[in-house]
Amino acid sequence: MSKPYVIGIDMGGTNTVFGIVDARGVVIASASIKTQKHSDINNYIDELYSETMRLVEANDAVGKIHGIGIGAPNANYYTGIIEDGVNLPWPTPIPLVQLVSEKFGIPVAITNDANAAAIGEMTYGAARGLKDFIMITLGTGVGSGIVINGQLVYGHDGFAGELGHVIMKRNNGRLCGCGRTGCLEAYCSATGVARTAREFLEARTDASTLREIPTEDITSKDVYDAAIAGDRLAKDIFEFTGNMLGEALADFTVFSSPEAFILFGGLAKSGDLLLKPLRNSLDKNMMSIFKGKVKVLVSELKEADAAVLGASALGWEAKPMVNIVPPQL
Amino acid sequence: MSKPYVIGIDMGGTNTVFGIVDARGVVIASASIKTQKHSDINNYIDELYSETMRLVEANDAVGKIHGIGIGAPNANYYTGIIEDGVNLPWPTPIPLVQLVSEKFGIPVAITNDANAAAIGEMTYGAARGLKDFIMITLGTGVGSGIVINGQLVYGHDGFAGELGHVIMKRNNGRLCGCGRTGCLEAYCSATGVARTAREFLEARTDASTLREIPTEDITSKDVYDAAIAGDRLAKDIFEFTGNMLGEALADFTVFSSPEAFILFGGLAKSGDLLLKPLRNSLDKNMMSIFKGKVKVLVSELKEADAAVLGASALGWEAKPMVNIVPPQL
Repeated sequence: MSKPYVIGIDMGGTNTVFGIVDARGVVIASASIKTQKHSDINNYIDELYSETMRLVEANDAVGKIHGIGIGAPNANYYTGIIEDGVNLPWPTPIPLVQLVSEKFGIPVAITNDANAAAIGEMTYGAARGLKDFIMITLGTGVGSGIVINGQLVYGHDGFAGELGHVIMKRNNGRLCGCGRTGCLEAYCSATGVARTAREFLEARTDASTLREIPTEDITSKDVYDAAIAGDRLAKDIFEFTGNMLGEALADFTVFSSPEAFILFGGLAKSGDLLLKPLRNSLDKNMMSIFKGKVKVLVSELKEADAAVLGASALGWEAKPMVNIVPPQL
Repeated sequence: MSKPYVIGIDMGGTNTVFGIVDARGVVIASASIKTQKHSDINNYIDELYSETMRLVEANDAVGKIHGIGIGAPNANYYTGIIEDGVNLPWPTPIPLVQLVSEKFGIPVAITNDANAAAIGEMTYGAARGLKDFIMITLGTGVGSGIVINGQLVYGHDGFAGELGHVIMKRNNGRLCGCGRTGCLEAYCSATGVARTAREFLEARTDASTLREIPTEDITSKDVYDAAIAGDRLAKDIFEFTGNMLGEALADFTVFSSPEAFILFGGLAKSGDLLLKPLRNSLDKNMMSIFKGKVKVLVSELKEADAAVLGASALGWEAKPMVNIVPPQL
């Protein structure tokens, strides 16, 4: 391959992290800028370009970049557009592929952040060699990237894999960011865990170190710390969360019969606190023909590199833009 | 193509229907035998062979059969085996591809009945030209065949697409044939509709022509006839069924973002009685990014031909068996 590097960009609501990655998945160098700094998307792209080029020059990579891969919220692989950017400071739709490829002059491919993580995991992580797996990202929200027969599932419109938005509670479910109620994301995300804490603290009367924290300030990290220290109520929150995740994964299994689920993101690092009830619940709720067949794994990618690595893997398959009519901004 | 025909076999719990099909999807001739007649699988295969050969000879098709495709309950495309035949009179696993290809001397491919229907629909029916769709079969049970990017989803073990077994009711759900409770199939199959009738009749006190039928004898056909005749309780049963199906299809959409759902089987012919509440519920429960994008279609295949046609389409891709070690019967 004449051009030995790709650039991976992880465009988050707060930070945009970017790095130069080689074909073996080594992040040669990385840096970041603040996503929220510019109210005009063009200024953001300008800064992204100048900072990326600085990294490229400093690492002797000028003329050696094969393509750019970007993971961004609600980014559509097919259209190259961020169609409804929930956490971004600019009006949508954003023709991201067009903007970035015009600025950088090299091929660009985009997908949503969970899909990027799945591609990264398949290329460099715990899913190497797996042709059928589902990546579940447990962060602020719950995202997913579904791989079937070695291919990422985009669906007919590019938006497949929104597994955080299956309905787990059809009556009196929690309000979800998507506007509906009872979604998996409203329970099993980091914010969902914090909501569970508030519900448990109100509904129960037993002692808990979580009662020392102002209710509205409780985070999933607080719950984790309390559970690790032996707090019963905090442990029950993880039990509740793992149990529901197991129910959800059992349902997902009947869809695509994956060989494994790969958990990724902050909550996925909770260890047995989450994994034990999750695996018990998965086994208990699994349809018998799938019992014992499906592994639950935790991402092997280094947290700092994972998103950039995943996005970068897309860079290898990025194609130059041809005949794309720019949409109205 | 030197051999212009395939044989399609639909192996049901009661009847086995088989037909000779040409490349345009015309069923040249078909016939059937009783699946339950033989307690020894080898005698069943013998009769299937002699009856099929009679059809082949009568239609001048000797030496013109490219391959055989079989749709059968729990048939595994990968292994060629019926691994857990719920409604069949023989011990499982059944090495069906081996038995049939040894007897007939031509290539055989098998898949489960719902997958066969999906392949038939994609090849000859309402899904022609669609690359992403989900076939939902509403018969004695609820089955599904999922097509993503033009390919049937088999999953890592060949058992993907058991959408009748997602859990729709997590508390006090009905017992399902799979041994768990609350499955979609326990509510939205033909038998599910009959169960709903019994529940509604017991819970309600209003008049209904369904009260004239002994409770245990009520079928989904009785409910349909009563609803068509204007019976309020019967209409409410379809409303309940369509509503739950809409909830389920909304959940399936976030998985693979299909362009369409294709409904197939007895209940799918209930027209607006089922489709109206189903479409309303689908729209109401759909995540906003998918709203208005997903069609609900009814199979275009002739009922009598559909299963055979679907199975036959597999016959074109059947490969001769090579080096397959016969499993223990």
